[in-house]
Amino acid sequence: MTIIFYDLAGATDALRFSPNTWRTRMALAHKGLSYETELCRFTEKEKIAFSGQKLVPIIRDGERVVCDSWAIACWLEDTYPDRPSLFGCDVGRATTRFVNVWTSQVLHGALSRLLLADIHAIVHEKDKAYFRETREKRYGKTLEEVSADRDRNLAAVRQALAPVNATLAQQDWLGGDGPAYADYLIFGAFQWARAVSAAALAEPGTALHAWNERMLDLYDGLGRSLPDMRRS
Amino acid sequence: MTIIFYDLAGATDALRFSPNTWRTRMALAHKGLSYETELCRFTEKEKIAFSGQKLVPIIRDGERVVCDSWAIACWLEDTYPDRPSLFGCDVGRATTRFVNVWTSQVLHGALSRLLLADIHAIVHEKDKAYFRETREKRYGKTLEEVSADRDRNLAAVRQALAPVNATLAQQDWLGGDGPAYADYLIFGAFQWARAVSAAALAEPGTALHAWNERMLDLYDGLGRSLPDMRRS
Repeated sequence: MTIIFYDLAGATDALRFSPNTWRTRMALAHKGLSYETELCRFTEKEKIAFSGQKLVPIIRDGERVVCDSWAIACWLEDTYPDRPSLFGCDVGRATTRFVNVWTSQVLHGALSRLLLADIHAIVHEKDKAYFRETREKRYGKTLEEVSADRDRNLAAVRQALAPVNATLAQQDWLGGDGPAYADYLIFGAFQWARAVSAAALAEPGTALHAWNERMLDLYDGLGRSLPDMRRS
Repeated sequence: MTIIFYDLAGATDALRFSPNTWRTRMALAHKGLSYETELCRFTEKEKIAFSGQKLVPIIRDGERVVCDSWAIACWLEDTYPDRPSLFGCDVGRATTRFVNVWTSQVLHGALSRLLLADIHAIVHEKDKAYFRETREKRYGKTLEEVSADRDRNLAAVRQALAPVNATLAQQDWLGGDGPAYADYLIFGAFQWARAVSAAALAEPGTALHAWNERMLDLYDGLGRSLPDMRRS
């Protein structure tokens, strides 16, 4: 039975800007699993009410519904052990979990300040009021105030990424000789920025920039299927 | 032939305050390898001149001299593959390298600001002038100026440790079901603080605090052999 993958889209269906659903999309491609995509917007919570919670990614794999990108990665790893591994081994899974937490807390924390106003510009028309209200409540500021100091916000993102860049100066992938789930975690953040902002997270000439180009080439250029704001 | 481990000591031989040599000490214990320790101080560079560089840890394993804590961990893993693994697998090694870089850049960066003046107080008498001169040149400030705002420096360390704490709320060790090299990386930072400062990096009741207690118990309480500044 084909896996159903629930994804978030913006103003157009091609605008898949969620960093967390990119993790799942790349994990599905890594495992070589076929799937069908169901799109929803922020305010279409009824489409995913069956899952008992309100966030994507979600996958439905036969009878099983799995929510949360980390739980989905573990589900795919454990259910399809004959496919290429996302973690390599149990210690690999455990240390990747640190990368997962770090990405969500530190990297996404810095990045959301940079991107917040830009995200508002690309979400679907019917999501704009919802997005503004929930995020302004979270930050206690307007979107424009959070994202006002663009240079400082970009500098903070690049500082957060410094250890990723330094690691990639020593090995081609965070997974070592080939991409693994740790790479998809960081790549999700890059795709988030690619979809919504003209800001380049990695400067040309850095190990991080070269890695992102390699990531975009994977799986027949899956990552390049996302429109690039830097070129539009 | 017994491995020789070159370590750094402070005012007394028991004061092994280097975070990087703690990584190696724990890795040797993890592998169950016996070794002899050669102590040196900052200003005894002649004792390690044979290595062609000026930093510890260093191990001499038969004919082979290996410098740098990461290179030593890889040497031990590759040379003693029948002993318990430090990384689990190649992907585990690759993702642990990110933890290695992050610990050295981010965690040690924050921690050194907190500890700098305290370290000066516990280094050997003959190292004090060397330590002050090299560190004040590095920071462009006096030791006392760097460490002046203790509350802010401690808050920055705890903020840096937040993703480690959140990971350990989900699994007992960074290595998953048991300790791995990723745990020794973070533990090195904790031992650095234990040796030189009254500041507690982890608050009682947190996952991080419970983990540090487990780490101190490993290998017959190896970590507890270091005098605890918080109790002196």
